[in-house]
Amino acid sequence: MIEADKQYNLIIIGAGPAGLTAAIYAKRALIKVLILEKELGGGKLNKTKEVENYPGFTKIGGIELAEKIMQHANQYNLKWQQQEVLELKKYKDMFEVKTNKDIFYSQAVIIASGTIEKALGVKGEKEFTNFGVSCCAICDGFAFKNQKVAVVGGGYSACESALYLSNIADKVYLIHRRQEFRVEEEIIRQIKSNPKIELVLDAEIAEIFGQETVQAKKITHLNLNLVNQTTKIINVTGVFPCIGLKPLVNFSHEKICSKQGYIITDNYCATEILGLFAAGDVTKPIRIKQIVTAVADGAIAAQSAIKYLKNSKNSNNSNW
Amino acid sequence: MIEADKQYNLIIIGAGPAGLTAAIYAKRALIKVLILEKELGGGKLNKTKEVENYPGFTKIGGIELAEKIMQHANQYNLKWQQQEVLELKKYKDMFEVKTNKDIFYSQAVIIASGTIEKALGVKGEKEFTNFGVSCCAICDGFAFKNQKVAVVGGGYSACESALYLSNIADKVYLIHRRQEFRVEEEIIRQIKSNPKIELVLDAEIAEIFGQETVQAKKITHLNLNLVNQTTKIINVTGVFPCIGLKPLVNFSHEKICSKQGYIITDNYCATEILGLFAAGDVTKPIRIKQIVTAVADGAIAAQSAIKYLKNSKNSNNSNW
Repeated sequence: MIEADKQYNLIIIGAGPAGLTAAIYAKRALIKVLILEKELGGGKLNKTKEVENYPGFTKIGGIELAEKIMQHANQYNLKWQQQEVLELKKYKDMFEVKTNKDIFYSQAVIIASGTIEKALGVKGEKEFTNFGVSCCAICDGFAFKNQKVAVVGGGYSACESALYLSNIADKVYLIHRRQEFRVEEEIIRQIKSNPKIELVLDAEIAEIFGQETVQAKKITHLNLNLVNQTTKIINVTGVFPCIGLKPLVNFSHEKICSKQGYIITDNYCATEILGLFAAGDVTKPIRIKQIVTAVADGAIAAQSAIKYLKNSKNSNNSNW
Repeated sequence: MIEADKQYNLIIIGAGPAGLTAAIYAKRALIKVLILEKELGGGKLNKTKEVENYPGFTKIGGIELAEKIMQHANQYNLKWQQQEVLELKKYKDMFEVKTNKDIFYSQAVIIASGTIEKALGVKGEKEFTNFGVSCCAICDGFAFKNQKVAVVGGGYSACESALYLSNIADKVYLIHRRQEFRVEEEIIRQIKSNPKIELVLDAEIAEIFGQETVQAKKITHLNLNLVNQTTKIINVTGVFPCIGLKPLVNFSHEKICSKQGYIITDNYCATEILGLFAAGDVTKPIRIKQIVTAVADGAIAAQSAIKYLKNSKNSNNSNW
């Protein structure tokens, strides 16, 4: 016999915007929900200084928005555990969710554990995060109108960020440690024909420099190490590292994970495993990684889980 | 020569949550945007008494949320015209948008004009809208915990609303004017095996009755006309008419419209016509019709339009 506080209709892994929205929608359908979060609720919002593109809040601190969404979810007496999920298994119609502290059981699971950006690992990066260093061009680009910025990386994310920022900034340096980009030719054509984008190849950032006054902290320039062992200085006020993301999933199932570890979902946030859903940045394919898309995914995943539970309720007479 | 105030990079048709979010994202990419709205900005929010499932606002009036999102969009000096779009045509790389008052030109267009619910057209319906009559079970179902409600209709929307509400309400009457439902057998099985759902077939609502006190206005019961020409009274506190939606599109293109007039889009909110995008309730396929999905769509459509404009800029040297 499994104790009542270990058994749920739905377990949500991750309490960022996607997970919290899934919780709001599921609780409003009177489902027995547990949300598991290894850190603070709010996810990546906690690392965001200001949010200006979540409609309804013209400008709000990331932590403040996180608190508002948590407060919203807690309005429905949402059950939380601050635990890290280590394993996820399915036995017949029941999922076993093993954390660093406990084991829980659930008929349905939504994975909404997000991603983490790979850091450059250079001096000045941490210090200027949110003060010029940003991992999201769409979120923060607007602040760099008529300024000079640098994008770092050689994949789609870097190239698309450079193109996006070229609408806004005066100049975009695209810094890449190799000569070749890992994108299709058409993107390279767009990059090369864009008069605002300057390629800085065979180069790595050595250090991010800035100024700190009583009023503000801001980037002034970058030191680059070039492959020919010389150095170079470029003046920018913004740096966008786009050197890769890591999905935050401790367990891996061939059936549902991409090579990079993302959870593969259909348009209804369902995976190939019945009863298992995923939402937000941790999923693939994803169109854009924004708060608005995370909350939409959370609602869709919850709705799919509700339908799944309803369906299995009728077919196997479970308690729900 | 087209005057500057008639020519845009992007015209957005409709200023509900989807259109306004598209505007916020496009303006933040410094695109020249015009938004056309025939009524008030905010779209269906203006008809919503209270919103409880838009994360970050535990409970907010629909009109208040509409105002907040409009304020947010206007922060970027968004250009508005209160006009109704009557025709949309594309000549070469330019769209011609004809309204009831004017003609505008744009390189890209996002249709976000929404839908309108078909009304039952019975006495009491208007009076009790938002006071027991609701067109959205997912949005408003939670308020009917342990109460008796009625859903009206015979298609997917009605059946799924009845199933959804059966989690929350004590009893759900599914009122349909025929015997047959226009849904797959599995849904009918779920409906029929659900102990909380009672089918009321060959029946139409004649009138919605209620009470109005100083404190509140609420539904008390329904009068039904049955096909055998008798009448019937059922006691409910909520009525959910689900008898169909009409997309709000005055123009029709075989290439992009479904039989019912919805705009068919891919996962990136793009239609089959280059440069033409759509977002929100007016699109098909749609997963759920919620504010969260509308704002997500708006952001995705804007992002797709931005990429399209960038691409055509490089290829045909337009001004943008």
